[in-house]
Amino acid sequence: MQITSAQRLDDGVLERAFTLGGIPGLLWTPEGASASAPVPLILLGHPTLGLRRMYPRLVARARHSAAEGFATATIELPGSGDRPGWPALDRARADLRRAMQAGEPVSDESVDALILPLVDKAVPEWQAALDAFLSLPEIGGPVGYSGGVISIGIRLAVVEPRIVAAGLFAGSLVPRTMFEEARRVTVPLHVLLQWDDEGNDRQAALDLFDAFGSKEKCLHANMGGHTGVPQFAGEAAVRFFTRHLKGVRAVRPAADVS
Amino acid sequence: MQITSAQRLDDGVLERAFTLGGIPGLLWTPEGASASAPVPLILLGHPTLGLRRMYPRLVARARHSAAEGFATATIELPGSGDRPGWPALDRARADLRRAMQAGEPVSDESVDALILPLVDKAVPEWQAALDAFLSLPEIGGPVGYSGGVISIGIRLAVVEPRIVAAGLFAGSLVPRTMFEEARRVTVPLHVLLQWDDEGNDRQAALDLFDAFGSKEKCLHANMGGHTGVPQFAGEAAVRFFTRHLKGVRAVRPAADVS
Repeated sequence: MQITSAQRLDDGVLERAFTLGGIPGLLWTPEGASASAPVPLILLGHPTLGLRRMYPRLVARARHSAAEGFATATIELPGSGDRPGWPALDRARADLRRAMQAGEPVSDESVDALILPLVDKAVPEWQAALDAFLSLPEIGGPVGYSGGVISIGIRLAVVEPRIVAAGLFAGSLVPRTMFEEARRVTVPLHVLLQWDDEGNDRQAALDLFDAFGSKEKCLHANMGGHTGVPQFAGEAAVRFFTRHLKGVRAVRPAADVS
Repeated sequence: MQITSAQRLDDGVLERAFTLGGIPGLLWTPEGASASAPVPLILLGHPTLGLRRMYPRLVARARHSAAEGFATATIELPGSGDRPGWPALDRARADLRRAMQAGEPVSDESVDALILPLVDKAVPEWQAALDAFLSLPEIGGPVGYSGGVISIGIRLAVVEPRIVAAGLFAGSLVPRTMFEEARRVTVPLHVLLQWDDEGNDRQAALDLFDAFGSKEKCLHANMGGHTGVPQFAGEAAVRFFTRHLKGVRAVRPAADVS
């Protein structure tokens, strides 16, 4: 992980930009996080709009999480932002958009063509980034995953044992095969649903919530469209992570973090 | 309102039992509530099991609310507890129970026969009780309604302008006509749904949530059966009332409460 810039925000949060194997990313740590006082980590998921465009929303989530004692980190998604283009993904997205704008039903094949390659490529990248984040002495774990493309969150929750809790946003198209993966998720889940999300099938979101195998899962549905998540819903999500990432054993043994 | 007993609980909460027009009730006020520092009020709804049987759960909700600065109050439902029996209601309940235990579909008529007379009789009683509660100098408003038979909460939210926010529990049978009343509810709503509630139709609960006319409404769905509401869900409900009953104008003009 090569740090490319670092700045201290006015609330004491340290923001570092980095690249990792050519992938740009951002890391925020609360003031006071150190080798002797390592903090839990929340991976911040985001849509495929590029980190630059998502920055205002990401830094707001990072500051809010830091105030509760969490480090946060994110990496650019494949084909997004400053990363090399991914023509096949762009074509799949354009095809899907065209169908939706024409009022045609969205086919399973077109959802699969957009989401499944993205999940397959992104998830190992997030796992490699997690290795790097947890190698920093000021980050101790445990680790949560929050938001972004929900299928990436589902796959990560299934394959990555270091993730102990996930906050998911039922706001993107979900391939049918992800419902099977959802049944294998067992970590506590906090699922946000915007009741009138224009780009989202509400019944599919409810079916997906029902499918999750987790013993503890809660659904918070609020009024409004995709970008209208109320502030109190964001606060409830942070409280979910506080319940599950604080006061539990860190990823590394205690002898290693002291 | 005739106070029949009063005791100070160990956390300083004042618990008073009363009767009002022959209806027994309970009132809890936080330590420090006074004519010069009147507090908002939450009406505590409950099922038709009688106040005596519900007391442990009611007092827990009252203490939790008092810790956030709210008075709470409740009255016995018609036909329940120490109030005179209501044979027609008992028959309707027995008929419904028999049908459910026999695995028969629950008819609209049988739900109507149980719920509608109860709502018609209970709601004016709660309104009269509210008059009495708000006449106490230490209770200033605003007023919220929380829990209990959801159809009573819906009707109260429609007909009682002093109720400015309602926390409802999607845990009882709802007559079809209440869906029409739900459309006329405009106050902020916080709806709890137990995802695996054995006595509740999940799809009907989701349809009811969709029907509410309120611009701000949130649904919190959690795992487990009817009585398995997790502690954090109760805390979220209190936070909802804090958002809506604190820092807003009291029912009585400021000149009247000082």
